[in-house]
Amino acid sequence: MQRVLIGISYNGSQFSGWQKQKSERSVQGEIERALGTLLAKETAIVGSSRTDAGVHAICQFAHFDCEDSFPVEKFPRALNGLLASDVRIVSAKKVKSNFSARFDVCKKTYIYALGRGEIDPLFNKLCAFSSYELDLQKVRACLELLKGWHNFKGFCAAGAQVKNFERELIEAKVTEKGKTLLFTFTGNGFMQHMVRILVGTAVDVGRGALSLEDVKIALEKGVRSKAGKTMPPEGLYLKKIYFNREIKK
Amino acid sequence: MQRVLIGISYNGSQFSGWQKQKSERSVQGEIERALGTLLAKETAIVGSSRTDAGVHAICQFAHFDCEDSFPVEKFPRALNGLLASDVRIVSAKKVKSNFSARFDVCKKTYIYALGRGEIDPLFNKLCAFSSYELDLQKVRACLELLKGWHNFKGFCAAGAQVKNFERELIEAKVTEKGKTLLFTFTGNGFMQHMVRILVGTAVDVGRGALSLEDVKIALEKGVRSKAGKTMPPEGLYLKKIYFNREIKK
Repeated sequence: MQRVLIGISYNGSQFSGWQKQKSERSVQGEIERALGTLLAKETAIVGSSRTDAGVHAICQFAHFDCEDSFPVEKFPRALNGLLASDVRIVSAKKVKSNFSARFDVCKKTYIYALGRGEIDPLFNKLCAFSSYELDLQKVRACLELLKGWHNFKGFCAAGAQVKNFERELIEAKVTEKGKTLLFTFTGNGFMQHMVRILVGTAVDVGRGALSLEDVKIALEKGVRSKAGKTMPPEGLYLKKIYFNREIKK
Repeated sequence: MQRVLIGISYNGSQFSGWQKQKSERSVQGEIERALGTLLAKETAIVGSSRTDAGVHAICQFAHFDCEDSFPVEKFPRALNGLLASDVRIVSAKKVKSNFSARFDVCKKTYIYALGRGEIDPLFNKLCAFSSYELDLQKVRACLELLKGWHNFKGFCAAGAQVKNFERELIEAKVTEKGKTLLFTFTGNGFMQHMVRILVGTAVDVGRGALSLEDVKIALEKGVRSKAGKTMPPEGLYLKKIYFNREIKK
């Protein structure tokens, strides 16, 4: 047997999310179906990140095991021939048999695209839109506050199945690209909805609905109501996965 | 009564096309539903162009009649509040009572976006993709041939309900934007699939599957099989409608 790590890019708008669902279309489910057809054998994959419905991936990873006889370099083209055009296998390589796409992740980078102004219907599933006037200095001051080691209990979905809410946010910045704001977050781990709440918090501070004091309280006391609203999924992209060891076999 | 002309932008990927259908979601159907709710009266609209399923519009137009009492400048915001985010009303103005969004059109501009190389899943519904190596000089030579007054019988969908296939193609050009080719066509009228076949023909010439001689035969003899294949709808955008008279009331 060999363990294979595949790089995957997808448009999340027509998926119920990464994780396989009984009756809904998921990225994991589609890839497992294609692999099952290609290898003529039920094959489970383990992804690096369980993205939510509507969230996109520029580069997600997943591993699976298969017979040594299948040439690894042929997986992208062979699987893409069996997949719809909203999910593509962009790379494949052999990895150590105990390597895990899930447990060997040490950092992830997400970006969030927020168009300023009216909704552009052509990009309605690739970008969020906000008509609020935003004070970018305040947005940046908020992102500075969020950076570092914190208990992010106030910044994740209610009912998240997590015991330890401590995470390190290594990078939290915003850049302008035309009328669009591009937020970038790199961290050692993200809980459910965390990036969308981080962006919502920066937006709420930028439009004056929250103060930096509120954000401090949200961070120090884990109070969800002092953090901002959860932004919609369509602006969110999983951009990069960092692994904590050499992945090549 | 007053006649109102609205400008409309939409992402065609989740529509069965412009034209109202009994059971499928159409742009016309969605706008008529919103108007019916807003005006509390069944209101039919007449569009400038009947775009096919999957085809986008940067600016489509439609007219309708309603009571004088409704302030025209309020239509965009009011209708957008009732519409999904993949269709937006971008303008509204009062026009002469005999003005027709359909019959007063004198020219239209379409663009077609063709990504070169592998499918990018993020843009799978906003762009077509082709991995063929294209000789851009040949593509341009083909577009030059297509320009002008011709019988475009060889360049429309089989079974098109048209008697006169003569049209003037005023502009037919291609520009490069990064890895994407942007085709622009302006003409006094386009038949069903015509732009998609024009692009397919230029692509087939550019990759060497058709010769300029073939294209001449397609134009002169109306032979569909000598023109190129029909490109998929997702690359096509209705960009601009030109009217043949002053439209302001």
